[in-house]
Amino acid sequence: MAPHMDPDEFRRAGHAVVDWIADYWATVEQRPVAPADPPGTVAAALPSEPPTTGGEPVEAILADLDSIVVPGLTHWQHPGFFGYFPGNTSGPSVLGDLVSSGLGVQGMLWASSPACTELETVMMDWLAHLMDLPQRFRSAGAGAGAGGGVIQDSASSATLVATLAALHRASGGRWRHSGIDRRYRAYTSIHGHSSIEKAVRIAGLGSDGTRSVEVDPNTQAMLPGVLRAAIEADLAAGDVPAIVVATIGTTSTTAIDPLPEIGAICAEYGIWLHVDAAYAGAAAVCPELRWTHAGLAYADSYCFDPHKWLLTGFDCDAFWVADRAELIEALTVLPEFLRNAASESGAVIDYRDWQVPLGRRFRSLKLWFVLRWYGAEGLRAHIRSGVALAERFAERVRADDRFEVVAAHPFSLVCFRLLADDDTNAALLASVNASGRVHLTHTRVAGRYTLRLAVGSPQTTEAHTDEAWTLLSETATTLLTP
Amino acid sequence: MAPHMDPDEFRRAGHAVVDWIADYWATVEQRPVAPADPPGTVAAALPSEPPTTGGEPVEAILADLDSIVVPGLTHWQHPGFFGYFPGNTSGPSVLGDLVSSGLGVQGMLWASSPACTELETVMMDWLAHLMDLPQRFRSAGAGAGAGGGVIQDSASSATLVATLAALHRASGGRWRHSGIDRRYRAYTSIHGHSSIEKAVRIAGLGSDGTRSVEVDPNTQAMLPGVLRAAIEADLAAGDVPAIVVATIGTTSTTAIDPLPEIGAICAEYGIWLHVDAAYAGAAAVCPELRWTHAGLAYADSYCFDPHKWLLTGFDCDAFWVADRAELIEALTVLPEFLRNAASESGAVIDYRDWQVPLGRRFRSLKLWFVLRWYGAEGLRAHIRSGVALAERFAERVRADDRFEVVAAHPFSLVCFRLLADDDTNAALLASVNASGRVHLTHTRVAGRYTLRLAVGSPQTTEAHTDEAWTLLSETATTLLTP
Repeated sequence: MAPHMDPDEFRRAGHAVVDWIADYWATVEQRPVAPADPPGTVAAALPSEPPTTGGEPVEAILADLDSIVVPGLTHWQHPGFFGYFPGNTSGPSVLGDLVSSGLGVQGMLWASSPACTELETVMMDWLAHLMDLPQRFRSAGAGAGAGGGVIQDSASSATLVATLAALHRASGGRWRHSGIDRRYRAYTSIHGHSSIEKAVRIAGLGSDGTRSVEVDPNTQAMLPGVLRAAIEADLAAGDVPAIVVATIGTTSTTAIDPLPEIGAICAEYGIWLHVDAAYAGAAAVCPELRWTHAGLAYADSYCFDPHKWLLTGFDCDAFWVADRAELIEALTVLPEFLRNAASESGAVIDYRDWQVPLGRRFRSLKLWFVLRWYGAEGLRAHIRSGVALAERFAERVRADDRFEVVAAHPFSLVCFRLLADDDTNAALLASVNASGRVHLTHTRVAGRYTLRLAVGSPQTTEAHTDEAWTLLSETATTLLTP
Repeated sequence: MAPHMDPDEFRRAGHAVVDWIADYWATVEQRPVAPADPPGTVAAALPSEPPTTGGEPVEAILADLDSIVVPGLTHWQHPGFFGYFPGNTSGPSVLGDLVSSGLGVQGMLWASSPACTELETVMMDWLAHLMDLPQRFRSAGAGAGAGGGVIQDSASSATLVATLAALHRASGGRWRHSGIDRRYRAYTSIHGHSSIEKAVRIAGLGSDGTRSVEVDPNTQAMLPGVLRAAIEADLAAGDVPAIVVATIGTTSTTAIDPLPEIGAICAEYGIWLHVDAAYAGAAAVCPELRWTHAGLAYADSYCFDPHKWLLTGFDCDAFWVADRAELIEALTVLPEFLRNAASESGAVIDYRDWQVPLGRRFRSLKLWFVLRWYGAEGLRAHIRSGVALAERFAERVRADDRFEVVAAHPFSLVCFRLLADDDTNAALLASVNASGRVHLTHTRVAGRYTLRLAVGSPQTTEAHTDEAWTLLSETATTLLTP
């Protein structure tokens, strides 16, 4: 056996893997969206030890992929996948990521592979242009200042680094050396994502450091007056308000926190404003949906996930800061083995100082492939398709007086429930999911069990949302029949 | 234009990308290892805005990749790349990762795609078996207990989550709610990686929270007596020792901290011991190199990076804990939208609670492909090749009395210097790197500028390390000639 796979063997096996993926996409609709097997099924089918000698052809591994792994997957690219938020991908994204894997370069420093950093900076500016984000988030061009963008693995990590920069600011620069020396506080709505509480805990404030601000019962959006009261109460107690995390498109219902009012409060008290638009930010590629981002100019940082609704595979969170210096000061540690002339010149970006890990993959390639292959209009068409499918589904729910639509649906998520108790709604969810044709998840809104249907897979059409509705409607009939 | 790339177009374009990578690998040796262009060269060659309409064939993007991006890369897979630590990859890894991109599933919960979690657990057990790690790190089999393994993006993140679990333990469980309420302390050697200081800072202890322990001037390894004294001084001051991070294979010189003595001290004082073997851990696949891991049974957590020296592309850090409950308690936050029956049964692993981000890519696929394609013996051959090439290079350095080998080289890194001042050594490094044939980086050992040659690319042979030596030797002659 050869010590390594040579280029010719890679070529042959690579074509086979590409064909395998093409076949998977062409047939994924025929599979159950999610498996029904009990925990341990996949593990039990695998040997308990690795082979001593290798040399197995890739086709043998693909055969086990088919027989053992794929039957144990929930298929996020299935057109009937309506769970969580979409985690969609696309051909161009997969190919861009394949190039990244093949190059195998590491962009921790500009000097460690310059094009890896420069393409990322330009792609972040491309995205900012496409979404008409405030000029101060941009690295180049008219109005660009001290800001800039970077790819994080997820919105969780974006929230974490924003929190760290906010602590650095709130401490007057002491945090970097002395750590948590006062009771710093973070604020988000009761529908702020769990990653906010997690980031605040990781940063050493404990779960007690997060203040959950009540929402308007009609819009599910943060109440600015309650935020102000919470800040003032903390100040009166001698605590230090450090960061407010507002959300455009909360996970439960895609509520939009009122940024103009929240931003004005943050400006008044000198508090870092981070805006988490993990799922819904992609909508800003469409001019008619940019109203959802009103007030963003107040933000110190902002993120959204192209890996959720913008056809770019996980992981790709796009994160911008208005003042990169605060972020870099918070995170930089410079050992001798990373010193280099380019960094010391100040003329380059070293993205290691914009994130938690040191190492970084060449993730901007997949964005480059997606943005060029689709173009702005292609991406807009995808977002509009999702919004239209959600509206079509919501109309059907509204037309059936056994159901209610629970919240506004400006994007591609519809929250709804049967006008029945929680257990009946949970049974409805379990029953439609057991069909294998669709996969929905749930949340609670105002304490009540609520179903969520999130559209986002590129393969999803009217036929699929209509089928979901038919399943829900027929199952409801069964459940409600005594 | 079609709204999305259909399977047939993906098949055609995918073959082209695979061929592009095969050609890149076949010709990478002919390229300069690192570019000489000034900062901004790549960015200036790219349009400042994304295209409005898409539909560009993938071949057009590949053409720009060739003309704009690739000339701006430092080529980590080049056989003359000897910088930092290797970041190697392989055909099987790229193909496994391609499958992951194509499936596009998300493994945040067992329930969100069960096979994604189960394959990862089994692969971590396979690695533990291959390296003969302590039984308590394993999820299944004889001797397995409360431990288990998980893939992190990098050793930086592994150190961070180990630190968080250690704080949770050291606080008696208060940390999770109350945050940093005392002066917790972390200990590592002065050669501990910069990610340790960074993790401690992120965790809210400030850079002052890290105690840098002096090393033995001969071995560059942590002095246990100095560690003990530091712990006792902190205890006397009312501070709380929370974690010791020991290193197998430090970044500067691949020194090995004495785990048996350090572990006994940690056990005596009840301090969490994390062992960072980011680069050198891969050596444990070879029985004759397992002496480097003596004392590992003391560790509460351990990590190494298959993406450094085990032919698996970035990102893939393998992290194990002896007691998963402490880690999960530290990190879990459970919102309604993630609740599910499988998690509540307690019968499954939800890896979101083992890491900072919520989302996760199906990274175990590339490990599965690598471990099956190479088998244990194939991986051992790769490690042995690196160790032998380093020894061969070190012999040449030792045989030239103008040079000295600065530290022991049990793995594939050789630290050496010209017997001349720091500026001359820096000029030597700059000069050989300017050749475009090799790329080395530097460090400081006992304050002196020291060159590092790290072997790891699968394409590197004796011809390449010999060429590196010839370049160094000839350049030294030029530099030393008045």
